[in-house]
Amino acid sequence: MSIGTVYGVGLGSGDVDLLSVRADRLVRNAKIIAYFRKAGKKGQARRLADPLIPADALEIPMEYPVTTEIPLDDPRYNEVLSQFYEDSCAILRTHLDAGHDIVVLCEGDPFFYGSFMHLHSRLMADYNVEVVPAITGMSGAWTATNQPITWGDDILTVLMGTLDQDTLTARMKSTDALVVMKIGTNFPKVRQALRDANLYDRAWMVQYATMPDQKVTKLSEFEGDKVPYFTIIVVHGQGRRP
Amino acid sequence: MSIGTVYGVGLGSGDVDLLSVRADRLVRNAKIIAYFRKAGKKGQARRLADPLIPADALEIPMEYPVTTEIPLDDPRYNEVLSQFYEDSCAILRTHLDAGHDIVVLCEGDPFFYGSFMHLHSRLMADYNVEVVPAITGMSGAWTATNQPITWGDDILTVLMGTLDQDTLTARMKSTDALVVMKIGTNFPKVRQALRDANLYDRAWMVQYATMPDQKVTKLSEFEGDKVPYFTIIVVHGQGRRP
Repeated sequence: MSIGTVYGVGLGSGDVDLLSVRADRLVRNAKIIAYFRKAGKKGQARRLADPLIPADALEIPMEYPVTTEIPLDDPRYNEVLSQFYEDSCAILRTHLDAGHDIVVLCEGDPFFYGSFMHLHSRLMADYNVEVVPAITGMSGAWTATNQPITWGDDILTVLMGTLDQDTLTARMKSTDALVVMKIGTNFPKVRQALRDANLYDRAWMVQYATMPDQKVTKLSEFEGDKVPYFTIIVVHGQGRRP
Repeated sequence: MSIGTVYGVGLGSGDVDLLSVRADRLVRNAKIIAYFRKAGKKGQARRLADPLIPADALEIPMEYPVTTEIPLDDPRYNEVLSQFYEDSCAILRTHLDAGHDIVVLCEGDPFFYGSFMHLHSRLMADYNVEVVPAITGMSGAWTATNQPITWGDDILTVLMGTLDQDTLTARMKSTDALVVMKIGTNFPKVRQALRDANLYDRAWMVQYATMPDQKVTKLSEFEGDKVPYFTIIVVHGQGRRP
């Protein structure tokens, strides 16, 4: 009996119709499906893939022990998460060793700031791990603005809202096109950095890109300090265009 | 009678199995299909979508008058290309005005350094133009390396090989993760910039990502000065990983 394969299947930006043909087929035919979620929630990946998941599939929810309760710079954050990923892999290993394949549902593109990477790095030495790329959340966001993100020689910089304000401002000042992700509670800091980099008036905010409750607004027309986790800010490049 | 809709359909990174379900359906049901290509060639987009294109679809090849024959900084380059896009739109308009929908095949993601943008900007005032996002060539490339491109707070910078060497070097020095596209004849310059930025030993070269002749090598193990147009260089981020 051979051991099973792990498929890290990117679900893309948030619309089930935008999964790749390969991802769609893998999910529809899966016998074991694993996914991350916050404890007590259905989970965004699970919800997105819902129409495709076979009724008789074995589901393995992997529930984050912490998300925002411990600050990122607290050493316990890494310790707790590391143990969580080890424990999750231990569960997957029992199924793989029994010869079963596992489809892991991944929001966005698995190798682009994805949680699946932490399983991949722990399992790749012992198992065949196949990654199915997907449409990134940022592609979904710039498409939602109905404007190209980059032209000609434009430089694109992708920043996480978790960076400190000085770094955000400096990098924003030196790019042609910009994407900011992981915004959530970092929103006031990101907005101030955009102001300081003179990009505030060109910035667009996309909430829930390609999802049913998608909302696209110019940042300058948005009021308030609270935005959902699924918020991406984009500033379009202005490069060469014949 | 209503006018037709233009669908800018992203074909993704190069594998027909990685089209989105929506893109796959649009191409399979298309009555009119347009695509760019170099004169005298079948065209990469047309070749990639070949298994999906209905036998009775009307095909509209749009053939570039120049690609590399005129330097980018020659004013004639923009003039010739601008006229070409106008002429292409004139042909599409006759079909749209007659009430027919058109599927335009787009390599990669249409709004990410894509040629479709030049049709979109010219047609959007008069017609309904829908863009279907896709897996970017760079996603295909980093997936091919079997390593995540970005972790934690990593900053990702995307550079075109057409930039001057000093700009390339400076931007390479100040990023965590890197993607370089539009390499082709710019390869020796890009390679020198990677050396000067101390990224040469960490760089991977992916030729024909997700295509049948995909080739993944460490840059330091590649010999020669010639690489195909479909070459992407990636340097993986080293960020936080529990």
